[in-house]
Amino acid sequence: MKDQFLIDKNRKLLLRLCFDGSAYHGWQVQKNAITVQQLLQDALMRVFGTRPDVIGCSRTDAGVHANDFCCSFETGSKLSCEVIVRAINAYLPFDIAVKECFEVENTFHARYDTVAKEYIYKILDEEKRNPFLYKYSLHYSHKLDCEAMYIASRSFLGEHDFTSFCSAGGSVKDMVRNVMLFEIERQENLVILRIRADGFLYNMVRIMVGTLLYVSAGRIFYGDVANIITAHNRTLAGPTAPAHGLYLDRVFYKNDI
Amino acid sequence: MKDQFLIDKNRKLLLRLCFDGSAYHGWQVQKNAITVQQLLQDALMRVFGTRPDVIGCSRTDAGVHANDFCCSFETGSKLSCEVIVRAINAYLPFDIAVKECFEVENTFHARYDTVAKEYIYKILDEEKRNPFLYKYSLHYSHKLDCEAMYIASRSFLGEHDFTSFCSAGGSVKDMVRNVMLFEIERQENLVILRIRADGFLYNMVRIMVGTLLYVSAGRIFYGDVANIITAHNRTLAGPTAPAHGLYLDRVFYKNDI
Repeated sequence: MKDQFLIDKNRKLLLRLCFDGSAYHGWQVQKNAITVQQLLQDALMRVFGTRPDVIGCSRTDAGVHANDFCCSFETGSKLSCEVIVRAINAYLPFDIAVKECFEVENTFHARYDTVAKEYIYKILDEEKRNPFLYKYSLHYSHKLDCEAMYIASRSFLGEHDFTSFCSAGGSVKDMVRNVMLFEIERQENLVILRIRADGFLYNMVRIMVGTLLYVSAGRIFYGDVANIITAHNRTLAGPTAPAHGLYLDRVFYKNDI
Repeated sequence: MKDQFLIDKNRKLLLRLCFDGSAYHGWQVQKNAITVQQLLQDALMRVFGTRPDVIGCSRTDAGVHANDFCCSFETGSKLSCEVIVRAINAYLPFDIAVKECFEVENTFHARYDTVAKEYIYKILDEEKRNPFLYKYSLHYSHKLDCEAMYIASRSFLGEHDFTSFCSAGGSVKDMVRNVMLFEIERQENLVILRIRADGFLYNMVRIMVGTLLYVSAGRIFYGDVANIITAHNRTLAGPTAPAHGLYLDRVFYKNDI
């Protein structure tokens, strides 16, 4: 009789991770590329002796970073959450870390139970590149017009059909999302955009950022962003900004876990 | 007759670089390892058509970073300094960048004309590692006693024979250096040590930092650092702290170039 039949599967754990996505092809396991989910499952295998299914709060694209990524799995282990954090971290590479572990209800779903997510996007807007930031921000050689970008971004707020800000390849049908917050902050030569919504379409943040870069460059008039939204036409919006400036920054759940 | 005989060698240029040292075996060209000097010379070859000798302000160890590294070379090129910066950057990898280029006197020597150098050393002192800082700071799992470290560091100030703080393998005979500044600053969980001296012995900063880590841990009494200096005995000081927390931060020349 194998050990795993004896394991009580009733305990569900939520992990909060952070990772430098530079070396990875995103979260989700893929056949010919290394992903964060795969390395996390390898680490869980070493800690628990079995390879649990792990459910992530979202897919993330190759090269995207996370200051807060949530995922859950079931285990029969009786180890305390504190010990589990240390044990998993001991088997993870240095660019992925578990920050916290919580026990959650068995009905909890790391993806469907999210009520909001917050992303940040970092842009370094000076002529010379910075060797320490090139994997962690978009390098943009011209000064950004943050005022025009901010005015344009007001059009994103609220509930809209964001078809114009969704790349082909997504499988969702309901294109309506509620953008609750869109901030633009300058810290010297670093411009940080912060976007919170109840959910995001495929590449939605990166297309919003690419559109605001076009607004700054005068290629899209800031007053036209509202029209681009109502046109439901991806070709009218700006380009998809690169992945390496993007961070999943915070994940919100129903009961404020 | 070869082109290089026609080149007027009378122009000497100083470059100020910054680089992420993670991928490199230090500054100086080596046989079986990639170094910053080698990649810079490759870039200069592409810009000027010849491969000039480049003289650096110091050697740096493998993995050490630089916010300001100075080097000089001679060229017959008439290109403006501004154009040269852009041209070289176009041929350098993203983790090395030229910040500035100046024309200097022909007698200038990038190494011998330095009057002081300033290094910083970054330590993250929290239990959990940070995926974004693991190549850019030392991760130390316990809270540092910055007060004890600061008191101990007062002994470093001034002119001393720093034999106790020099690794074997250096070729210099005069072990006296003048430490002009030693600051310790906490920015939340990041402790930044800043050290300025007229020159540094082999691994001097890293052994000073390793000694202060021992002071923080209570393995060396802060009052004993002065005795360790006067003992002229490397075995009494603390360990050599890892390279990846160290940054050459500023290089000072005679005439404030």
